[in-house]
Amino acid sequence: MDSEMVNKLKVMANRLRIHSVNATNASNSGHPTSCASMAEIMSVLFFHTMKYSVKEPKLYTNDRFILSKGHAAPILYAAWAEAGLFPASELLNLRKISSDLEGHPTPRLSFVDVATGSLGQGLSFAAGMAHAGKHMDKLSYRVFCVIGDGESAEGSIWEAAAFAAHYRLDNLVAILDVNRLGQSDPTPLQHSAEVYKARMEAFGWHAIVLDGHNVEQLVAGFNEAARVKDKPSCIVAVTFKGKGFIGVEDQLDCHGKPLGAKTDSALANIRDALSGPAPGLCPAMPTESAPAPLDAGGEEAALRLSRPPGYKLGELVATRLAYGNALVKLGEASRRVVALDGDTKNSTFSLKFAQAFPDRFIECFIAEQNMVGVAVGIAARRRRVVFVSTFAAFLTRTFDQLRMAAISQTDANFAGSHAGVSIGEDGPSQMALEDLAMFRSLPGSTVFYPSDAVSAERAVELAANTSGICFIRTGRPNQPVLYGDDTAFAVGKGHLVRQSEADKLTIVGAGVTITEALAAADQLAKRGIAVRVVDPFTVKPIDAELLRQSAAATGNRVLTVEDHYPEGGLGEAVAAALPGVPVRRLAVGAVPRSGKSQELLAMFGIDSEAIVRAALEMLA
Amino acid sequence: MDSEMVNKLKVMANRLRIHSVNATNASNSGHPTSCASMAEIMSVLFFHTMKYSVKEPKLYTNDRFILSKGHAAPILYAAWAEAGLFPASELLNLRKISSDLEGHPTPRLSFVDVATGSLGQGLSFAAGMAHAGKHMDKLSYRVFCVIGDGESAEGSIWEAAAFAAHYRLDNLVAILDVNRLGQSDPTPLQHSAEVYKARMEAFGWHAIVLDGHNVEQLVAGFNEAARVKDKPSCIVAVTFKGKGFIGVEDQLDCHGKPLGAKTDSALANIRDALSGPAPGLCPAMPTESAPAPLDAGGEEAALRLSRPPGYKLGELVATRLAYGNALVKLGEASRRVVALDGDTKNSTFSLKFAQAFPDRFIECFIAEQNMVGVAVGIAARRRRVVFVSTFAAFLTRTFDQLRMAAISQTDANFAGSHAGVSIGEDGPSQMALEDLAMFRSLPGSTVFYPSDAVSAERAVELAANTSGICFIRTGRPNQPVLYGDDTAFAVGKGHLVRQSEADKLTIVGAGVTITEALAAADQLAKRGIAVRVVDPFTVKPIDAELLRQSAAATGNRVLTVEDHYPEGGLGEAVAAALPGVPVRRLAVGAVPRSGKSQELLAMFGIDSEAIVRAALEMLA
Repeated sequence: MDSEMVNKLKVMANRLRIHSVNATNASNSGHPTSCASMAEIMSVLFFHTMKYSVKEPKLYTNDRFILSKGHAAPILYAAWAEAGLFPASELLNLRKISSDLEGHPTPRLSFVDVATGSLGQGLSFAAGMAHAGKHMDKLSYRVFCVIGDGESAEGSIWEAAAFAAHYRLDNLVAILDVNRLGQSDPTPLQHSAEVYKARMEAFGWHAIVLDGHNVEQLVAGFNEAARVKDKPSCIVAVTFKGKGFIGVEDQLDCHGKPLGAKTDSALANIRDALSGPAPGLCPAMPTESAPAPLDAGGEEAALRLSRPPGYKLGELVATRLAYGNALVKLGEASRRVVALDGDTKNSTFSLKFAQAFPDRFIECFIAEQNMVGVAVGIAARRRRVVFVSTFAAFLTRTFDQLRMAAISQTDANFAGSHAGVSIGEDGPSQMALEDLAMFRSLPGSTVFYPSDAVSAERAVELAANTSGICFIRTGRPNQPVLYGDDTAFAVGKGHLVRQSEADKLTIVGAGVTITEALAAADQLAKRGIAVRVVDPFTVKPIDAELLRQSAAATGNRVLTVEDHYPEGGLGEAVAAALPGVPVRRLAVGAVPRSGKSQELLAMFGIDSEAIVRAALEMLA
Repeated sequence: MDSEMVNKLKVMANRLRIHSVNATNASNSGHPTSCASMAEIMSVLFFHTMKYSVKEPKLYTNDRFILSKGHAAPILYAAWAEAGLFPASELLNLRKISSDLEGHPTPRLSFVDVATGSLGQGLSFAAGMAHAGKHMDKLSYRVFCVIGDGESAEGSIWEAAAFAAHYRLDNLVAILDVNRLGQSDPTPLQHSAEVYKARMEAFGWHAIVLDGHNVEQLVAGFNEAARVKDKPSCIVAVTFKGKGFIGVEDQLDCHGKPLGAKTDSALANIRDALSGPAPGLCPAMPTESAPAPLDAGGEEAALRLSRPPGYKLGELVATRLAYGNALVKLGEASRRVVALDGDTKNSTFSLKFAQAFPDRFIECFIAEQNMVGVAVGIAARRRRVVFVSTFAAFLTRTFDQLRMAAISQTDANFAGSHAGVSIGEDGPSQMALEDLAMFRSLPGSTVFYPSDAVSAERAVELAANTSGICFIRTGRPNQPVLYGDDTAFAVGKGHLVRQSEADKLTIVGAGVTITEALAAADQLAKRGIAVRVVDPFTVKPIDAELLRQSAAATGNRVLTVEDHYPEGGLGEAVAAALPGVPVRRLAVGAVPRSGKSQELLAMFGIDSEAIVRAALEMLA
């Protein structure tokens, strides 16, 4: 590389530094020192190594960039401004309510694929994109991810590291910005670059230690990474927090603080970089053309099951099995459909998809956080329809990833099996009893809770076509099929599975508690008491209209019954949808235990007998 | 070691194997092959290496054992039966609803400290106990943790590994049961023991590869581990799943399946171990005596703040600052109090405690899952009162750990700062908006949401004395002090912070929305409309009686306002507590963004203006 280019990249690094200072000064908040440590990394990546269209940040063949240390957002924004996407003057709107240049990156910006800012998540997103690029798209785009040394304490980083090595993602480059200082203390390893190298190597990566402020070393490092085959590469960049800021560099108490009054003196050595002429660096374009859509109808076409559910009324089928069956039918309908599982595929029945479409199934092993991150990374490219499955209980492991996925505007879908005490003998550690509360709380989410195999298949079909996070709660036990293939299902539309003119009470159940509610209705009928049973199908949005009609038709007597803890689940959703109606709720009120499914439904007061007791009290 | 002992340990291993088979056959469910791979490990640990009182499993100086791979519970139960704690015949009650021998271990059993079964969590619990033993108790008990190879894909294992090495926990021994097979596939590393060794070494551990079915090698390995100073040790035990079971050993499709009809043939080579005489092995007792209580009143004595809150009415103080102040006062009152933080201590203000009591503060760095596991591990010994803090948003990262902590009957306390959009410019990734839904859903939890500095200090005091998981939600902005030092606070008791005989509406707020509610009340008063304002103090349990009285006094008009998403938070809690009352709820209805605190409260409809608008509509 010629010395002119070296000088230009150095100048660019300092321009990015100064923009970061100016922007955080303007907002009077933000993390300029976290930007400064990665200024040369950003300069080399954005103006030498990466191939991308500045005008089309979403171009499919662009190299991708993920800023895992999202608090360094100002330097990401500065890089795109310097590249020419928008005027540098906009950088001074950082963190204003009127600007999309937020404190941490979100996909409100065209050049951000996934939101970051909750630490340790970026490498999973990047690994998902790299997996799709190498193994599914078979394109040459590469994925770069800058990780802070502090956040490398997050276990999700190591889940992602193992995943990337297992799948030989040689199109993935992680850059570890080892700037030595965390928010409140030095990091445990400080500048022990060789330890980071040893860790990455032990996890199957090619690792390169270099001076992260040396432009030539960075260029050489990225070139070396590009030549490595069959394993991902990690640049362990030794850097200094606040590098280049006189009196601030490498100081502990400067995290998350604008330079403010210190600015003039701190920038004395570098201010010429921005006041002088721009270095005139121009990113290279990708040479590969964008791939054709995977479907004849394009990637916006609605997905339909290749065949109807096809069960017999009354047949006993677990909703988790129906999930697997539906996934295969969707996979038959479109090459866009991709499934992931975390070593539970023979329990969630995603195994059926894995066997039918091994090239579109990703085994993520027992690392749920990374699995969700990979899914969100793949889904962010809007070329695939992604389904993730594991036990619903274990999705709680990924709540922070799901929270960030919502901010990332993901369309990924999640299926959680083994809901509730009805799983039986495995005991409370395996029972999802707070998953509805979790998924309901996510903004823009849709929560399916199918009550039979037919509605479970339709939930999968609808989820594939519904924006935002979709969750499908499936159960372990076999349950009778309630619906014919011709029944229409829609998000926010419930079904009356039992009704008469004489109904005195509305019972709302879902999943296994629909079976119990119907049994209770039979028992009550023997006593001459007619009740109706509502299957809401989606708990969010819930069919408020149907609930209101049913409540009105039954004297405002509404009883909910759910295989879930009392808070945040079906009962509270129904109560919230029926203001003024005194909804009575049956739910699992304490930590359950091992036992047979029916024994547990009885012990925790959500079986048909409990429903009958509650109904009789309400009607007394 | 003499050959007689070797033979006895071998026989014991096979006895444990056969018990595991018999128990899982009796329950017709469970994981005998996962037990078989660790039979020699359990035999050597429980009958040679570990020092403990069989009669007093909770004896403080006992060596501790954590079964991270909780699905191997039958062999844990078998070991205690063989040691003599209860008759072996009870093993056949495995997984029955009438037995505490559950599918996965829970502290319903005297010899289980923490529940396991959600994988990858055991090492954090063990590290917490080891940290307390080495650095706080300064006792010689040691901690042993068996980890499955499959679960070592969980990032939390690597968070714990880094933590244990950083704190030089040479009293901690991890045993990695490398049995090659997961539930649905071989593990990524299969029998690559040297890779596991390299990973553990890179994370700062002493690692020993050995044949996990060789009793002499195991004894030697544990002896070597006992001699290692200043670092934890890992036994990388190469094993076979289903070891010893003819036709089953090392086969893929045998996970989680009782041997059933295969039993006789599978056990042909080992059945004599149980039908023959017991080997007469007797665990060694610990030699150290139990430590004295840390408080004069003993470890059950109530904890009180050393000094009252001491703020002035109307003074502006953030509740997060009050958290730090109260923690110091509790720490002054008792040596039992311990605090943990994840590199946010200068934001959560646990820094104050760290500065006052450095020996009782544990910096856990940016690894929240491990932090929670460490806290639960320490709290499980019932000698310390543990407080954990980070941004409330990042506690979502630990939902699975919290779920297991509830099953573990923990008394650990959690403080989450930076709640809601009121944090301002940092944006949605840092804003907790689903934390109330999460903590409310945990069985037995108490959820404090203090509205000023005085109530925040009292929340800390009450949490220290309240069983089960306590969560304290604190805020970033300064807020006016509402209460005097003489105000009494109690779990489940709310306060009327504004009221009159003429009130037409009840407004329920908490945290920053109390400030907004009071401002709204002022504005409404100018229009001649009197409203009352309720501060619930705890969202779970919520003061239903006060809410009912207030609703009744204000014509059943109740308005809630919360800096949280609409689902599972304050509004649904109030609605659930007021069946039949048409509660209207204001909450953050979409993914927020960066901006100033007050701008965001306005944009998302939870500021005083929004409250006034809603109130006028309700009164129209």
